[in-house]
Amino acid sequence: MKCYLDNAATTVCLPEAAQKMQTVLCEDFGNPSSLHNMGMDAENYIKESRQIIAKTLKAKPAEIVFTSGGSESNNLAIYGTVRNRKRYGKHIITTEIEHPAVREPIAALEAEGYEVTRLRVDSHGVIDINELEAAMREDTVLVSIMHVNNEIGSVMPVEKAASVIHERNKNTYFHVDAIQSYGKIPVFPGRIGIDLMSVSGHKLHGPKGSGFLFIREGVNIAPLIYGGGQENGLRSGTENVPAIAGLGAAVADLFKDQDSNIAHLRKLRAMLVEGLEDIDGISINGPEAENAAPHIVSVTARGVRAEVLLHALEEEGVYCSAGSACSSNRPAKSRTLSAIGLKGDALEQTVRFSLSVHTTEEEIKYAIGKMSEIVPRLARFVRR
Amino acid sequence: MKCYLDNAATTVCLPEAAQKMQTVLCEDFGNPSSLHNMGMDAENYIKESRQIIAKTLKAKPAEIVFTSGGSESNNLAIYGTVRNRKRYGKHIITTEIEHPAVREPIAALEAEGYEVTRLRVDSHGVIDINELEAAMREDTVLVSIMHVNNEIGSVMPVEKAASVIHERNKNTYFHVDAIQSYGKIPVFPGRIGIDLMSVSGHKLHGPKGSGFLFIREGVNIAPLIYGGGQENGLRSGTENVPAIAGLGAAVADLFKDQDSNIAHLRKLRAMLVEGLEDIDGISINGPEAENAAPHIVSVTARGVRAEVLLHALEEEGVYCSAGSACSSNRPAKSRTLSAIGLKGDALEQTVRFSLSVHTTEEEIKYAIGKMSEIVPRLARFVRR
Repeated sequence: MKCYLDNAATTVCLPEAAQKMQTVLCEDFGNPSSLHNMGMDAENYIKESRQIIAKTLKAKPAEIVFTSGGSESNNLAIYGTVRNRKRYGKHIITTEIEHPAVREPIAALEAEGYEVTRLRVDSHGVIDINELEAAMREDTVLVSIMHVNNEIGSVMPVEKAASVIHERNKNTYFHVDAIQSYGKIPVFPGRIGIDLMSVSGHKLHGPKGSGFLFIREGVNIAPLIYGGGQENGLRSGTENVPAIAGLGAAVADLFKDQDSNIAHLRKLRAMLVEGLEDIDGISINGPEAENAAPHIVSVTARGVRAEVLLHALEEEGVYCSAGSACSSNRPAKSRTLSAIGLKGDALEQTVRFSLSVHTTEEEIKYAIGKMSEIVPRLARFVRR
Repeated sequence: MKCYLDNAATTVCLPEAAQKMQTVLCEDFGNPSSLHNMGMDAENYIKESRQIIAKTLKAKPAEIVFTSGGSESNNLAIYGTVRNRKRYGKHIITTEIEHPAVREPIAALEAEGYEVTRLRVDSHGVIDINELEAAMREDTVLVSIMHVNNEIGSVMPVEKAASVIHERNKNTYFHVDAIQSYGKIPVFPGRIGIDLMSVSGHKLHGPKGSGFLFIREGVNIAPLIYGGGQENGLRSGTENVPAIAGLGAAVADLFKDQDSNIAHLRKLRAMLVEGLEDIDGISINGPEAENAAPHIVSVTARGVRAEVLLHALEEEGVYCSAGSACSSNRPAKSRTLSAIGLKGDALEQTVRFSLSVHTTEEEIKYAIGKMSEIVPRLARFVRR
């Protein structure tokens, strides 16, 4: 049995999305900037996707800017803000458990001379709103806080954060990396005061190379890529029409029945956690179920190295992740796990299972079964 | 008959490339950063494409960095150079007929305080090497010259330019926008002293959202997008594996028989030019055939507005472009056509036909036939 539980790393493309891409690649392949009808047809695919996505966010279509994916969205939000708002200051607030696509551009800005405050998280992986409030300054131009952590599934209080930020400083932009939350936790960014919100397509059964940045009406950022002026001047380059069309199809499917999708995920997650907790030497990291994202489970197996466990599971067709798969600097220790208090060996004994709406109960049972065979077997060899 | 002669705007995706994408999207969909075999499989697609492309350039695989397309490649080359080489100066040399994806980032840098020299072109759309030599300064950090102009098909002397640049200043990086030349005019960038060279996938029957930047070994630039450190730290974000795989398939096909492809294009271009020149009121812009790219023909039809001609042709199934289709700022006058000396009405009476290796003689004959019917008919209505 193949049991792919690495959906926070990437997901299989929805067949309907892939089919739509095929049509756009090979038939309706025009350049949206062309004046003839093939250009118009291409543009209509983009319009349709933009409308589908805007509706899911209760946003206006013009508030959606398509990008090449989550990392570009995050970089566009961060650089776009600071480059355009130099006169408001050089202070940035973020958290200590951001994804590298937020952490690294902010670190690069720090090297350029920006001042950065990194909010700590508690043992559940959540920031303290009071700490955010205390960190806000007159020269804070940007706050960037992820919605759901990609390694442990903790959910940040983005609505409260938005209130605090805008109360304290009306010139501060609030960016949310929603790459792990979009479609899994309802959020209407414009309504709760999120100015910029990043989403990636390949985490939600859309194609790789797709994504968008929500930019609230009235929020002005600089582009990252200049050129032909596509996407309202904010993202030049011939639009990736097939990917945008595929993304639209995937989003339409995801939101068709969002409530029952989320309920399905929650049920599977509970089942997985319950099954795993019965295994000797296993502990679950991060938030309690009711405060966790519905699709991520971080598991420490005492005495078993994550990579060894990962490969043993893989041989049985169960795919998971050691830490997160989002960094190509592979063996680095997880900052998220350190931040929530994991120490020493536990940092190297932690794997992540991540579910999709297409995951089945059968797969979860199978994965639990394999874990309960493999973990005790591998733990026996530990000499400590 | 459908006769798509707008291949410099975008091309249909090669069926084999689209098929490969389908496989990667729906079967081998792993994240290359994942430690399990699905990650390895995904990484192998990237490796294969990188090798295919490197070979076509007589380059090393490590000299190829995949991007989301031509505009990103150009922006990465330009920003990557200036951000990393501040200590060498703030002077940039470019030409007055660059594509917006080069022109606009350089204009943005000019607004930031960089000094820019824009080389003029002659009536054939070619720079004067002596002017380049004279423009070189001690503080010149970047020279960016396109290989083939996208509107008129003029070919720039990039090999001579490389010599002059490196002779004059060993700290200057030379970037070439090869988006319209790759696969149509052989060029081995590392061997002739090109430091950075941009290529787009969707201009050569690869997918939209694909492209690469050649970065010569030893050349150090800053990233545009920071994060997980993919592409040797130069382009973070989960790799667009399907697009990269599709690009590799398209490049392999394009270079399978490059000489005969180019000969085919040259023959079709000559046929088209000859046929069009017989039509009253028509003139061909830009370089003579022997100095022109083999796939672009810029045509002024006296007394006929480009958009009117474009739509009349479209009704007969012939697709061309008014100016270039690379800008979403549609009605702007062409800087390229102005630069080669077109004036007044001629600027708005110019269309571009652009060929692909898959264009047939029959299509060219059909297009000539339609042009010879339509142009005289439309010209009759002119009252000037």
